[in-house]
Order: sequence, then C-alpha cells, then structure tokens
Amino acid sequence: MSKSNYLEDFAVGQKIVHAIPRTISEGDASLYIALTGDRRPLFCSETFASHLGYKEIPINDMLVFHIAFGRTVQDISLNAIANLGYADVRFTSSVFLGDTLRSESTVIGIKENSNKKNGIVYVYSSVYNQHNEQVLSWQRWVMLPKKNNEALVPTTHIPEIKDHVDPKNISIPSYLNARNFDIASTGSDKLWGDYLVGQTIDHSHGLTVDETAHTMATHLYQNNARLHFDEHLMEKTAFKKRLVYGGHIISLCHAINFQGMENALNIVAINSGVHSNPTFAGDTIYAKTVVLEKHKVEGRSDLGLLRLRLIGIKNLEPSSLHSIMQEDAPKIYHKNVVLDIDYTVTIPRGN
Amino acid sequence: MSKSNYLEDFAVGQKIVHAIPRTISEGDASLYIALTGDRRPLFCSETFASHLGYKEIPINDMLVFHIAFGRTVQDISLNAIANLGYADVRFTSSVFLGDTLRSESTVIGIKENSNKKNGIVYVYSSVYNQHNEQVLSWQRWVMLPKKNNEALVPTTHIPEIKDHVDPKNISIPSYLNARNFDIASTGSDKLWGDYLVGQTIDHSHGLTVDETAHTMATHLYQNNARLHFDEHLMEKTAFKKRLVYGGHIISLCHAINFQGMENALNIVAINSGVHSNPTFAGDTIYAKTVVLEKHKVEGRSDLGLLRLRLIGIKNLEPSSLHSIMQEDAPKIYHKNVVLDIDYTVTIPRGN
Amino acid sequence: MSKSNYLEDFAVGQKIVHAIPRTISEGDASLYIALTGDRRPLFCSETFASHLGYKEIPINDMLVFHIAFGRTVQDISLNAIANLGYADVRFTSSVFLGDTLRSESTVIGIKENSNKKNGIVYVYSSVYNQHNEQVLSWQRWVMLPKKNNEALVPTTHIPEIKDHVDPKNISIPSYLNARNFDIASTGSDKLWGDYLVGQTIDHSHGLTVDETAHTMATHLYQNNARLHFDEHLMEKTAFKKRLVYGGHIISLCHAINFQGMENALNIVAINSGVHSNPTFAGDTIYAKTVVLEKHKVEGRSDLGLLRLRLIGIKNLEPSSLHSIMQEDAPKIYHKNVVLDIDYTVTIPRGN
Repeated sequence: MSKSNYLEDFAVGQKIVHAIPRTISEGDASLYIALTGDRRPLFCSETFASHLGYKEIPINDMLVFHIAFGRTVQDISLNAIANLGYADVRFTSSVFLGDTLRSESTVIGIKENSNKKNGIVYVYSSVYNQHNEQVLSWQRWVMLPKKNNEALVPTTHIPEIKDHVDPKNISIPSYLNARNFDIASTGSDKLWGDYLVGQTIDHSHGLTVDETAHTMATHLYQNNARLHFDEHLMEKTAFKKRLVYGGHIISLCHAINFQGMENALNIVAINSGVHSNPTFAGDTIYAKTVVLEKHKVEGRSDLGLLRLRLIGIKNLEPSSLHSIMQEDAPKIYHKNVVLDIDYTVTIPRGN
Repeated sequence: MSKSNYLEDFAVGQKIVHAIPRTISEGDASLYIALTGDRRPLFCSETFASHLGYKEIPINDMLVFHIAFGRTVQDISLNAIANLGYADVRFTSSVFLGDTLRSESTVIGIKENSNKKNGIVYVYSSVYNQHNEQVLSWQRWVMLPKKNNEALVPTTHIPEIKDHVDPKNISIPSYLNARNFDIASTGSDKLWGDYLVGQTIDHSHGLTVDETAHTMATHLYQNNARLHFDEHLMEKTAFKKRLVYGGHIISLCHAINFQGMENALNIVAINSGVHSNPTFAGDTIYAKTVVLEKHKVEGRSDLGLLRLRLIGIKNLEPSSLHSIMQEDAPKIYHKNVVLDIDYTVTIPRGN
Repeated sequence: MSKSNYLEDFAVGQKIVHAIPRTISEGDASLYIALTGDRRPLFCSETFASHLGYKEIPINDMLVFHIAFGRTVQDISLNAIANLGYADVRFTSSVFLGDTLRSESTVIGIKENSNKKNGIVYVYSSVYNQHNEQVLSWQRWVMLPKKNNEALVPTTHIPEIKDHVDPKNISIPSYLNARNFDIASTGSDKLWGDYLVGQTIDHSHGLTVDETAHTMATHLYQNNARLHFDEHLMEKTAFKKRLVYGGHIISLCHAINFQGMENALNIVAINSGVHSNPTFAGDTIYAKTVVLEKHKVEGRSDLGLLRLRLIGIKNLEPSSLHSIMQEDAPKIYHKNVVLDIDYTVTIPRGN
C-alpha cells in the first residue's frame, strides 16, 4: 500500500518521487473558475492571451500550484499535525492545456521537538512538465508526529529559509510582450506606475465558502488530506467539522483581489504564507491587498513587478479590520484573519 | 480599479465595452450539464449535431446567454436595486467550442425617478465572437441608485421596448437541416405539427436548488453580482440569505421542460422575461409550458417556430398551480411563481 | 412526450433504443475527479496511459458506466419501486475523449408479483460508441408498478442471471502492455502476485457525501430519476429527503480503495452488486476490499485478474465493522453497510 510517512521516515538528502502525474485539461480550468469565481482574462480568453504573445491560454498559476502541491500530500503531509509554512515559491515556466505535471521533493531539513514525540521536516519540492522542464518549485515545512515514540531522529538540520524570492530569480517568459496590453479587456487602466508602495486596497466583495465547493476543489487537486473530506472523523476533533484546504482560501482571496488588481498578469513568486486561522464552510471570505514593493525588470520596459501582501479575512468587511494583529497581542493574528500571504506579480508598466 | 456605475454615470448614446472576453470550453459545457441537469442531445451529442448539419456540438443557447450577460454585470448592474426586465433577445449565430465571446452595450434610455434618488437605465447589449460576428443581442433595463443624490440626470428618454421578436428577425443557420431529424435520439415523436396553440404542459420533475450549485453556475458565468455569493452581506438584508441568479432559474426550467418539449432545437429569441419572486437554496423548481404561437419559417419546410411561455414554480407541483397570478389580485404573481418567460424555439416540422 | 414505462409496457424480446447519445469530453473527466476524488493515474495522466500503450487517456470505467446507465433510466427505471440488481457487467472496449455513447436494451424477462400490482422486469443493456463497437453491457432487473392494476402481464419468464462473469469472457485490449508498468506513478509496488485470496484491506479515508456533489454527479450522467433531485417530493416519503444515486456510492468506494489497490488498472467486469442500505447527504463513506479470487490471463504474462468484493460502509470506520451482515440476522446487511459489489480488475503481474 502507498504509505504515508512519519517523522522518523525522513532523512536529510532523501529524494521522494511523488505518484500520480496529472494532465491538465479544459475541464480543470473551467472548474477552477466555477469553484473560485476567478475572472482574470489571461486564463479564460484566447484573444487576450494571444495578444500578449502566449501560444494559447495558460493555466492559472494557482491551479498549477494546487495540482502540483496535491501530488505531495500523500508522502509529505498526510500525517501532519500542522502545515507550518512555505517559502521561495517560484513559478518558472507557464503551463498549458495538455501538459502533464509531476512533483518531486528532497528533504532539506529535520528537527525533532524537545518532547521527542514530533518534529519538523523541511522539503524542497520541484514540479516538472512532460518535457522535464521545471515549472514550479517551493520550500515547505510541516510538523509530523513519530509513529513510534522510541524511534531515533539522529540529525538536526534547519535549512536556510529565504525571506522572499529575490527579484533576480524571477522568470518572465521571453514571448510575453505587455507593450500592447489591452486595458479594455481587464476593465481597469491602473498599471505598474499607478500603484504606490504602502497603498492598501480593500476587496469588499465577499465569497461564502460552501462545503461542496471546497471539497470539490480539493478533490480536483487530488489532495487527499483527510481532514477536508471526512466529517465523521472531524466531528470527533476540536474543530467539530471539516477544515477548508488553505490553498482554496488563497484562490478565493486571489479571485477577490482581481477587483483592484485587474492588470496583474502572473504570479511569479510566493515569498511566504501563513494560514493564520482555520476556515469552515459557511464563512465568508474578504480580502485586503497591501503594496509592499515595486521593482523594474532588467531589460524590460513593458512590465514591472509588484510585491503584494494579500490578507484574507472571514466574516468581517475589510474596512472594519483595523489591525491585522490583535491589538492587545501584536504577535497573534486577529481572529478573523485567515490568510497572510506575500507574493509577487507581473503587471504592465505604463508610465 | 474597475468602477461600477451609478445612475448619474450613464448618458443616452454612451457605448460601453465590457471587460473579460471569454473562450468557451468543453469544461464549461460539462459544468452546464452538471449544474442544470440539461439533457438536450444537440448540446451533448456529436452524432446528433452532425446529423443536423452542425460542424460540431454547438454551445447551449442559455450557456451562451449567461456568459455573455455575465460580462455586462460589472458595468451595468453591479449596483442595481432591481433588474427590471429584458426583451428582444436574439440568438443570431451559433457558438462553438473555442469561440471567444465579448460583450458591448449602448445606453438607449434613461429616466430619473421622481424621488430623485434613483432611476432606470436602458441598454442595448451585443455579443460578438472572435471573428466579430454578432452571436446575440438584447435590450435590458435596470433600476440604479444615484451615488450622489445631488447629481443631475439631465435628459429623460424611454426607448421603445418591443413586445416580442418579430419572427422575420429570427436567424436560422443555413447549414441546419432538420429533415432527417432522429426522434430516437430525443425520445419523443412530437414535432411542430403536434403542438397546439393554447396547449399547456406540466413538467413535474422538480429540481431542488442547492447553495453550491447556483453559486458555481454564477461563478462559471463570471457574473460578479455580490448578492449571489456573500452570505455575510445578505444576512443583513430582508432576504436574510443569498439570492439565486435569475438566469439559473431559467436554465433549470429549460432543463425541466425537455420532458415534453424534447424536439425543440434552439432558442432563437427571448421575447420577454419576468423574475416574479426570488429563489433561495432549498427551493424546488417545477415548470409549466404554454404554447403561445406557431409560425412557419419562410423558405423552410423542415422546421417551424414555437413561441412558448415557460412558467417557473417553486415548492408546488405544476398541476397544483391553478392560476399564475394571485386569484384576488390578478396583477400580482402567485407567490410560488418565480419565472414567467416568453421565448421562441425551432422544432422540426413533421406534418 | 417521452414516456416512462410501467410493468405492463414491457414484453420479453422487446428492444428499446434509449435516447440522448452522449459525447464524452474533458469536462466530464475533470468533473468525475472533482466529484469523487478519484486519483487513478490511468485516467488523469497522459504519460502514464501512453506508457501502457494507450493512444490517449481513457475514460474512467465507472464514468462510462454511469453515463451509459443514465441513458436507460427514462425507459427502464423512472417508475421503479426498487432497483433490485445487476449482473454480468462487461467492459468490452476502452472509451476515449470524444467518443459518443448510446445505449440499447432488450427485455429478457418479466414476472408479475402475486399481488398483481407490480412485478419484475429483466433487461440486457448494451452500449455502443460512434463506430458501433460495443463498449459495455449488463443485465439488470427492477421492480415496477403497473400503471393500470387491471392490465394483464401474460407471460412469466425469469432469465438465467450469471453468478459472475467468466474470466474467459473478459476483454483486455491487445495494445495494453503492463510489462513496463511504472510503480512510481501509483505510489505502490503491490502487484498481482502480492495479493492473497481472502485478504481484507480497510480503506479508512472517509468521504462525506454532500447534497450538491451527488446531485451534480447524477446530473452529469443525465440520470433523471426524480428521487435524487426533488426534495419537495422526497420530503413526503419515508426517506424525508433526497436519496443518493447508488452508482455515486460505487464511485466513492472505488476512489477510496485506490489507497490499497493502487495498481489495479481497469474494471473489466462487475459480477454483481447490492445497494444494501440508502445513503443520504451528510453520510461519510468508508470501504473495505476483500480479495475473492486471482486469475491468470491466457496468453499474457504482463497482467492478471483480481476478483474483489468492495464493501461500502457509512458513518463507521471499516475497522469497526465486525460483520457485513447483522450478527443476529445473517441474511440482513448491517445497517451501516451501503454497498456490496463483486467486480474484477486487471493488475500487473509482478511475480
């Protein structure tokens, strides 16, 4: 039987080839729209994509991420006590309809906790298409229990986790040409030059999470973490019900922030991400975007980079969230904040 | 940011190019079937479609309508107090997989209400494919608030709203040949000649609306009207919960009336439509079809037109609905009637 | 109107051509994954499928079954009091994207019950692609009421129902070559040689059934049996709510048993099946697989057959189910057992 791993099953340097390569289809792309409400024209309009130099409609970056991530769950995090974080997520090549994705991971760190019952495993995961071109990679760390508390975890190695992806390591396809960008197709004329560092945008069009929608999305990604699907199991936990896959919340927030970030093209990096509170069916998700940094891209005058902080909020209008952290405990997230993600997008330059 | 418009933002003659062109895929067609229960073979059977002269399976007329309509919401009706009506909906050309649709609107009328706080905007919307061929058009009017009650709305112009689409203005593709129509593929031998003006057909196979199904459908159409998705917002309204997109109810009623109207091929026109009562998740939809008119088509002996009235009913078997209007208030719809739509279909002639 | 049949409408030897041929698309395949959680790489990976000799990704056997079965409901079982059973289900040829399936049935038996109000109809159903190649066939029997209790049902004929499909009658495509089977793509190295007759595998990753998911699946198959969709109707029955289509439970159990049966390739036969208790939205489905028989295939050393018994269980971990039948009534199923299906799969031979 395909096994799921515990802390003692990992060793630094170990390489894991994840099962179930996946060919991405038009059906996946349509379901992504139906399940998240995404409206970015790059991922649903042949004319818009070809105008920018794409040979055909590319696959939504977050759909690529979820499918690639889904491959790794069985081996890395099926037994996880907590998905602690991810960093250095780089989208290195576009994915198109018919591409087949497979994922591999290398263990880059391990640390047993002082209770000797669990610990942290760090992996570097890499995603390839059918031509063995890398399309995506990330670092990730999870807390795992031991299966056998007597098992020895010989070494401790904590890898360097990058604070953010260096703009120099960001890949932008050479065929992409944003010079003739068509603002009529996005509904906004706000380009790179129009955003200001420190600027905050509230996204007040909420999306309520329904049980079937989040489970369908997570099934689509073939992410088989049990806590999203098994109500009978979850009723016995402190949560009392199924948990929503954190990636689904990223997708909802990213769909919501189209209104205000209409001309952002691709996600080229996720610098870091925290799922600060759980989400359940019935919660309504809002979002807030903060512009963290602006970068030009060497050799390109057609587009620039925006580094953004995207805050996901449940059951509270973004204009009513006065502080992301608790006012009396500034290291703890406000109880309505469910996501705090730092990512980088391309956007046509304008002035 | 892409703006949403208020009453004072419109002027007669103004032209609006709606954002987010959309390429229609196999995934969209499958989702339409899964979300509505549609069983018409023309939209799911290559052999059936090619037997009728189609080069491939066409896209369901109502899916085309919903996607085209979804483009217009941001600019026309995001702030609407009420979607008052539509008329003169003409399906002028078939849409196929891979076609990219875009929508444009022209303001054809405006009238401030006497309260000076809101008014009515009338638009003519037109939908084109990637070859700039018109595939669909309609007239529509919505009630919009002013953003600024002091704003002036200088002119009043109420356009002529046609009572119904003149059969002479109905487009039927030249390649469509219904002469060799295969009744075994629809399950009924009832053709144009078998329907009688005034005849009523009860469609008693109810479909219960679930929250995820209506929101997924509305997301698929990229219709971003907030009241379908944001439970947190809607809890504070008189409705107390999310409203179902009226177009989803048309699709459900149209799927239900396959049983009884098996051989109707295309919707060629929607003459008028009223969403007479709201629908919510949990409601079960039934339908009733009344044959209003029969028309021959000049130059064609293979098919004719039926003008139909399709009544959507919630939580009441159609045989139990004795009057569409309230018996003691004949201008007010029966509280269980949710849809009253007048449309025209093609159907093979038979005798 | 397409009619639905009652007991007296059937006669032995009668042939029924079912309506609504259906072209299978990428959208259907993606929805199947999203609605069931299926992870078998043969049905989602171009590289995996082509490595085995397939020209492209084949359609999941159970999706083929459900779509083909859905065609027959209107004529055979729309009025059924009970779907009593099916047998001799043979998957005779692979189905690919773009294939159009149609179903036909022949009445092979009829028996009026002694109450003279209802009886049993037996049919043999056969499914063809657009090249008129048979891809699937089965025997099935349903209990149907009379429409008119005075109607005569002249003959009684009970056909021979085969206990199981003879392995000699099982079709395996000549192009399929399991010699170079890639276990890294399935996550398990357990092949035909590793399974033991009598062995039991518990599948403890439960899937909770949601109302929208089961109705979307059943709509996707265009199965129009009213009791899955019409809550208003079902509230008046002893069930009080919508019933889940039994086939959806087969699909969920089959998706769950990927964990433990990773290298099973195709379902080549369903020998028999019992839906022993109803399933409703909110139930969580678990499964148990028992290895019944192992067979070599004449002339092939690359793969063998496993005959499996797949038990579907609701709201109870499989390890907690001590007996499939009630301990004090061994002919009655345990109240948590919802499915007992006997089927045969191909699997690479190994040793």
